[in-house]
Amino acid sequence: MHWLRDAYRFVFLLLLLATATAQAQPDPLPSWTDGPTKAAIIDFVERVTEVGGPDFVPVEQRIATFDNDGTLWSEQPVVEGMFALERLRAKAVEDPSLRERQPFKAALEGDKVYFSQAGPQAVAEVLALTHAGMSETEFAEAAAAFLRRARHPDLGVPYTALVYQPMLELLAYLRENGFQTWLCSGGSQEFMRVIAQPLYGIPPERVIGTRFDLKPSERDGRIEFRREPRIATLNDKQAKPLNIHVQIGQRPLFAVGNVHSGGDIAMLTYSAERSGPSFQLLIDHDDARREFAYQEPDNASLSAAREGGWTVVSMKRDWQRVFAQPQAQSDRQRSE
Amino acid sequence: MHWLRDAYRFVFLLLLLATATAQAQPDPLPSWTDGPTKAAIIDFVERVTEVGGPDFVPVEQRIATFDNDGTLWSEQPVVEGMFALERLRAKAVEDPSLRERQPFKAALEGDKVYFSQAGPQAVAEVLALTHAGMSETEFAEAAAAFLRRARHPDLGVPYTALVYQPMLELLAYLRENGFQTWLCSGGSQEFMRVIAQPLYGIPPERVIGTRFDLKPSERDGRIEFRREPRIATLNDKQAKPLNIHVQIGQRPLFAVGNVHSGGDIAMLTYSAERSGPSFQLLIDHDDARREFAYQEPDNASLSAAREGGWTVVSMKRDWQRVFAQPQAQSDRQRSE
Repeated sequence: MHWLRDAYRFVFLLLLLATATAQAQPDPLPSWTDGPTKAAIIDFVERVTEVGGPDFVPVEQRIATFDNDGTLWSEQPVVEGMFALERLRAKAVEDPSLRERQPFKAALEGDKVYFSQAGPQAVAEVLALTHAGMSETEFAEAAAAFLRRARHPDLGVPYTALVYQPMLELLAYLRENGFQTWLCSGGSQEFMRVIAQPLYGIPPERVIGTRFDLKPSERDGRIEFRREPRIATLNDKQAKPLNIHVQIGQRPLFAVGNVHSGGDIAMLTYSAERSGPSFQLLIDHDDARREFAYQEPDNASLSAAREGGWTVVSMKRDWQRVFAQPQAQSDRQRSE
Repeated sequence: MHWLRDAYRFVFLLLLLATATAQAQPDPLPSWTDGPTKAAIIDFVERVTEVGGPDFVPVEQRIATFDNDGTLWSEQPVVEGMFALERLRAKAVEDPSLRERQPFKAALEGDKVYFSQAGPQAVAEVLALTHAGMSETEFAEAAAAFLRRARHPDLGVPYTALVYQPMLELLAYLRENGFQTWLCSGGSQEFMRVIAQPLYGIPPERVIGTRFDLKPSERDGRIEFRREPRIATLNDKQAKPLNIHVQIGQRPLFAVGNVHSGGDIAMLTYSAERSGPSFQLLIDHDDARREFAYQEPDNASLSAAREGGWTVVSMKRDWQRVFAQPQAQSDRQRSE
């Protein structure tokens, strides 16, 4: 009965292999420190995907929305702002009167105090002037060229190197578990569409952003849309849930934003008010050594997180690695 | 060498089985008449999905957009119009002055001539009055209740029975081939979201429609959006490509509309102008016996189809069966 013993041995080996494979299942979030934040994320994902479990959520309701600036990549400075500034400088050469008119004067002079007082509408005006008067195709080409050419003023690396590695892992982990990952950014929809697929694997139809009035026009005999210098929706604060409603039609099961201007509180609240389970993640920029440290003067986002029981990410404690491109990290540390 | 002969026999049987399976692959469009229209659809889908073929289109670009009324279900009468009328009648009981004001007077009196002259803006005003002042949840409940209760005035069946069986097969066939199927309707986004998933398997985030201004409000302590009586976008004609750009960000690879008011010409043109392959399907309502026969006074859609080389569906010739629910068919024939 040699063959029978061999067969048993073979089955035993198979079982051993299967067990080893199960145990060797790789850590889905290797750049996250083992601890309560990482555990809370994994616990939530396991609960809502457990077929037959009390918190199971069907795949079509697994909507995850991510803010972009300060959530998926660094926002010191805001990259689209640097793009707008480059375009504004070029426009000011053609039309020097821009140097005397606000908010363009402040933008050209780097007057941050003006913008912090004037609020998002002033930023929107700069965006409108620098983003309008082009077809979508021309805009996409201009944005892509900027991203290839531009370097971070302090770090000297391309902005695309400043994507957060732990967030790339979180995006992939959620998608592996049947989640749709969406971008919901205060940046313009078209700028975000240029980066969303190559940087985050998020397709154009899952990008929600600030939008301009669009006017149908013709270019090379084809219908195109020209941006008018008027904001149709400034996708910040209360507008985020509203535009999520328009483009998704469901409350996010998983929503991620960051501490900076309170811009994500409404989106995370909207998610938290979902019937049934939901998860809110708020990123706190508390790592001056590896990235940047900044707070809100009124602490609104952290207060909302405490009140709502949201999970707060301390970049310092919860992330073992910050940037997707290791070069960016060492440059950051050298630049100190 | 028995075992060798047996092995050959076994392989032969396997091959036979494989061939039989390949031959027995079921017709993906069984309700479509074998002929040039069906062949053109299948040929296109096979070309763009053939890995390594000259017309291959990556799965993330396989966007299909469908008009709703007259394309996926019958539009005689327009179902959302009947819903609006029911609500308008209820409002006229509360506020009798509506009976004297246009366009409400015309709607209450069934004055079709008024609407054909006043154009889509008049319809929009009726929609605005009857769809506004509710939260999204309340609206969805009201629409779902209407669809359960209401019956087609001539056929006596629920409106949901008047979905076209050949189009259900086309939706499923495209999805099996990696296409995203989107609804792009002149109807309101919220009404379409109520029917899209149960009738067509289209999730809420893939519904593009007419939208009202939304105002954040609270209901039971949660953020909700109330519709204001102002149209934000009337998703018809030129607005269809524009809203496809906003919600999808790509030109449709496959676009389907119907002859009625020229409302789909811009969407099909936008698709036809895609770089690389694309397919446009235009449904001609020429079957008075099984459905309804109607034309455009200026023949604009059929002229555009001829000029653009779009594929025209003759419901009479190309569809062996019209309605998804057989009951509707026999009732239609009895009602003559």
